[in-house]
Amino acid sequence: MRTLEAFNKLGISLDLALEAHELLRGATKEEIPGVQEDKESYDYAEVTTVTILNDQGAQIMGKPMGTYITIEAPRIRFESKEIMDDISELLGKKLETLLKIPPDSPILVIGLGNWNATPDALGPNVIDATMATRHLFQYAPEVVGEGLRPVCALAPGVLGITGIETAEIIKGVVERVKPSLIIAIDALAAANISRISTTIQLADTGINPGSGLGNKRIGINQESMGVPVIAIGVPTVVHASVIVHEALSNLNEKWSGNVMTATYAQKITPDLSRELSQSIFQPFEGNLVVTPKEIDDLILNVSKIIAAGISQGMHPGINRGNYQQYLQ
Amino acid sequence: MRTLEAFNKLGISLDLALEAHELLRGATKEEIPGVQEDKESYDYAEVTTVTILNDQGAQIMGKPMGTYITIEAPRIRFESKEIMDDISELLGKKLETLLKIPPDSPILVIGLGNWNATPDALGPNVIDATMATRHLFQYAPEVVGEGLRPVCALAPGVLGITGIETAEIIKGVVERVKPSLIIAIDALAAANISRISTTIQLADTGINPGSGLGNKRIGINQESMGVPVIAIGVPTVVHASVIVHEALSNLNEKWSGNVMTATYAQKITPDLSRELSQSIFQPFEGNLVVTPKEIDDLILNVSKIIAAGISQGMHPGINRGNYQQYLQ
Amino acid sequence: MRTLEAFNKLGISLDLALEAHELLRGATKEEIPGVQEDKESYDYAEVTTVTILNDQGAQIMGKPMGTYITIEAPRIRFESKEIMDDISELLGKKLETLLKIPPDSPILVIGLGNWNATPDALGPNVIDATMATRHLFQYAPEVVGEGLRPVCALAPGVLGITGIETAEIIKGVVERVKPSLIIAIDALAAANISRISTTIQLADTGINPGSGLGNKRIGINQESMGVPVIAIGVPTVVHASVIVHEALSNLNEKWSGNVMTATYAQKITPDLSRELSQSIFQPFEGNLVVTPKEIDDLILNVSKIIAAGISQGMHPGINRGNYQQYLQ
Amino acid sequence: MRTLEAFNKLGISLDLALEAHELLRGATKEEIPGVQEDKESYDYAEVTTVTILNDQGAQIMGKPMGTYITIEAPRIRFESKEIMDDISELLGKKLETLLKIPPDSPILVIGLGNWNATPDALGPNVIDATMATRHLFQYAPEVVGEGLRPVCALAPGVLGITGIETAEIIKGVVERVKPSLIIAIDALAAANISRISTTIQLADTGINPGSGLGNKRIGINQESMGVPVIAIGVPTVVHASVIVHEALSNLNEKWSGNVMTATYAQKITPDLSRELSQSIFQPFEGNLVVTPKEIDDLILNVSKIIAAGISQGMHPGINRGNYQQYLQ
Repeated sequence: MRTLEAFNKLGISLDLALEAHELLRGATKEEIPGVQEDKESYDYAEVTTVTILNDQGAQIMGKPMGTYITIEAPRIRFESKEIMDDISELLGKKLETLLKIPPDSPILVIGLGNWNATPDALGPNVIDATMATRHLFQYAPEVVGEGLRPVCALAPGVLGITGIETAEIIKGVVERVKPSLIIAIDALAAANISRISTTIQLADTGINPGSGLGNKRIGINQESMGVPVIAIGVPTVVHASVIVHEALSNLNEKWSGNVMTATYAQKITPDLSRELSQSIFQPFEGNLVVTPKEIDDLILNVSKIIAAGISQGMHPGINRGNYQQYLQ
Repeated sequence: MRTLEAFNKLGISLDLALEAHELLRGATKEEIPGVQEDKESYDYAEVTTVTILNDQGAQIMGKPMGTYITIEAPRIRFESKEIMDDISELLGKKLETLLKIPPDSPILVIGLGNWNATPDALGPNVIDATMATRHLFQYAPEVVGEGLRPVCALAPGVLGITGIETAEIIKGVVERVKPSLIIAIDALAAANISRISTTIQLADTGINPGSGLGNKRIGINQESMGVPVIAIGVPTVVHASVIVHEALSNLNEKWSGNVMTATYAQKITPDLSRELSQSIFQPFEGNLVVTPKEIDDLILNVSKIIAAGISQGMHPGINRGNYQQYLQ
Repeated sequence: MRTLEAFNKLGISLDLALEAHELLRGATKEEIPGVQEDKESYDYAEVTTVTILNDQGAQIMGKPMGTYITIEAPRIRFESKEIMDDISELLGKKLETLLKIPPDSPILVIGLGNWNATPDALGPNVIDATMATRHLFQYAPEVVGEGLRPVCALAPGVLGITGIETAEIIKGVVERVKPSLIIAIDALAAANISRISTTIQLADTGINPGSGLGNKRIGINQESMGVPVIAIGVPTVVHASVIVHEALSNLNEKWSGNVMTATYAQKITPDLSRELSQSIFQPFEGNLVVTPKEIDDLILNVSKIIAAGISQGMHPGINRGNYQQYLQ
Repeated sequence: MRTLEAFNKLGISLDLALEAHELLRGATKEEIPGVQEDKESYDYAEVTTVTILNDQGAQIMGKPMGTYITIEAPRIRFESKEIMDDISELLGKKLETLLKIPPDSPILVIGLGNWNATPDALGPNVIDATMATRHLFQYAPEVVGEGLRPVCALAPGVLGITGIETAEIIKGVVERVKPSLIIAIDALAAANISRISTTIQLADTGINPGSGLGNKRIGINQESMGVPVIAIGVPTVVHASVIVHEALSNLNEKWSGNVMTATYAQKITPDLSRELSQSIFQPFEGNLVVTPKEIDDLILNVSKIIAAGISQGMHPGINRGNYQQYLQ
């Protein structure tokens, strides 16, 4: 019941590679061929790096080959300055490991999502907080400090507002601006409530169709953009149907362990989960999300952490001690 | 399973009298002593008036004696001007039936909720859109048109931001301003997804502890305020635990009807529902809500309808044809 | 003193062709070679069409050849529904006269300006209110009503936030989306306080370097974009140095008419105006604007009028009676 | 020409005691009877304390007896973390000197102004950032850290939105909440452009009719509230008529020094200034303000400084090192 297959039946793609891997490995923690997982511990965070090594791994995971770094930091919800600074610094360092370009190569930061929809506004919020420097190199090189690189930033909006595929807008800008790399920020959906606004995923695979909160139909990745794309995502919601599925999975597990109830556990299937969800979620089918009541605050908080982290990761001269003067 | 008792076990109070009454009557639609229900049909709305006639009804319903008018208008989500105008007009007329004060008596409109939390911002949004006239009577009587009454408006904020019980703030203002009646606007939680932003409840009982999205501990009602209080509420969320409960209730019903599964249906109880919810909803227990992704838009839309409706209900001189010049 | 030359000396370009023409013609209303002016009167508006006919006119006016239609509607500040609808309809009709493309050709609407700076947020606000239809033609043609054309919409941000010249972003998108025409919305600076948020200029010349509130260095016009560009602008500020200049010009005029004071009037020159301005405007030199206190409201109001007007002008099937269901 | 009398003729009251005192003292820096001025220098700020000692001083200054502390910090516009922290700390220390109440006495913070009007939103912004603690003492005393006092916070709105005199709302709340002291935050108008968002005034006299951006008709002071009121204000605008007056004053001064022009300098009077202003400022008379284009940013920035500063001043346990975890 708690399997990747079940999620597929519910029509929900798992945005976090970590969650997909966990589901695939199951309770027995079996190894998945073509997929490697490494864990590190920090004061306020666990970092899990899932590497999809080959096509076999990609097919099983339903995600492209590449590196997926997940920072889990449950305590960032409490907004302590020290914890926030720690996580930003860690994010910066992890981002650096994925940047395979010279320190003066230009980067385009893209904030995906809809600034008028709270849980989808993560990307635009990060853009608002990130300092663009590219124009300074061009028009006022004398004010550019040591250790900065040219960075430009765009919040292209969503298809429903622009009428243009987001990938088309970005591709057009990429062709004019010619960055060496793109960093794309996006709000994700998680399978687990506890990850909302506390987990950050970096992936060197870019953004692929169907992922994230908005309905992207065209990928934003090396293939479509012609330059490497690093995706940074934070779960801001859990799909409502996941809640139903989780409840039934828990019931299934609870009953499976008992001789008396095991035959009924078998009746609790993904199909049943989908059937029950559909009847409850009319007329919003597929469009319902679960969020904490304080989601507006949580989004602002994690947006600041991301902006601080990518500034430190992109610019050699920005660090934990001075990042605040480079944010807006 | 789908009973008022079950909801109580989950710690969820039903804000809509309509929903409480439905649950109590159950599938067999039995009469509830001390409670009367009347229905009317309109082009774009069904209106249900639940009247709690006596103490017995109040005790069974878990709500004070009084009149609860519910306007269900599923089509207002589509933002047609005509439908919106229809529902505003209907709201105005229903409000008028509850106003037992002379047409020139002053009214205080209170927008409850937190303007920084999207689903809880209904009240403050309505205040932003409503035109205050009380100061005009005082300082510029010559500009006050025919058919207006003195109206003042306040969005007092929430306990977590002000550090003051909302009822205390309002009581303080009431003692200075001495309105003849209070209209209090609040975001509600529903038991049914389809009611989010499509249902409007008017109640002449005011607002009672524990209701609404914010955690009010002191009522805002005739008893505490000394003047009649009409509450106008719109469900903007469904508590996440209701979703789990609904899924299990559906499973329970599905199985109950069948000889083979009926014994297992009995195992699906409110206690089980609570147990499964708690394990899923860590660490946000009690604080998770289900909303449509487009909740920001829906709230703005229904806020305009409420502002237009109460303006028509409060001022004899404002109607469907001219309300727009009295909104802000 | 009240001459185009004087404004040039102050480093202020006049965004409204109407104002430039008025200054050139002076009190004696002399004809300007190569420039034609026509006036029409409506219930709530005066429309002035300034046509720059040839190179001579362009050079004198300091603006490219083309048609500049100005709608002056001082009463739209009062937010009457009827007046707003009148002006939107008029704007739609005037826009139609400038659209020389078939009714099904795609249009790209660009909202210039900074959504985080109130007086510069006109463009992004209009984008927020305008309905994109291009993606519907692509993905859901069955929901597209009669009389709509493909419209897409973009708020590209400003150089200081994106690090990219706005014209570069637009050019990139134009190359992908291939619209037949661009409509660019921008906040302007006026020379006259009374025009703030009450005057709308349409120009078939696009947007040229140095115009508008943001500092655009590259034009957004047929030359740079390869398709016709219609600019729609509304003054939202007056530069503070214009106020000083106006005061001194008034003094100059007052004194010029009198034998006793005329010699002193001669001392009140544009150079003096610039000198006095500079000493007052430290440390914000050039960056100070004059606005009414209620500018936030005025911008929202006129943004709605523009969005309603361009929707009527672009789509044959949208009119005064039904536009509201096509706004967001 | 540059006299307090001239400002009175223009109908402009000077919100900063420092500016009123400067004008009174004039170029010759004469002593004003009943008024004392002391200056201190800090790394990033000059602090001027103007004390109005007696009735004579009050009458000349047009302000009540009391202490007016002005922090001038031109560099806070550059948003360096160090400078911002310095000024917040300094504000906290100066606030402490005015608090004549025990460290556990409750304080009510009032954010005056209109949250929908950028330059007037200073007060509400400070409330949004300030942590209320009063309810924690009541409902969760175990989470209240050492060195905190009960603080509550209210943004009452403005007369035009509420229809209620702001002083009435506050008085009503004061009677219920019974604070020992009120701190009222308000946006001010300055006479000098350079003070916009860089100058902070603390006054133990509260807020008196006619001061600030909104038109308050009733004071918020010890007399009306029954408890001491400390006003904290930041200039966010300069009235447009001040600009005209400044330009003419500069011209007057320039000419006064010269035998040839001195007779004409005499013609440049406050009456002339008023006359010229009125003709320019139609139809916004009295309602036009001058702000930097980036006013939205400046207000947010200085709001954070004020929130950080008053938190340090009010709570013995909050200081430069830990204030961020007490802001919202």
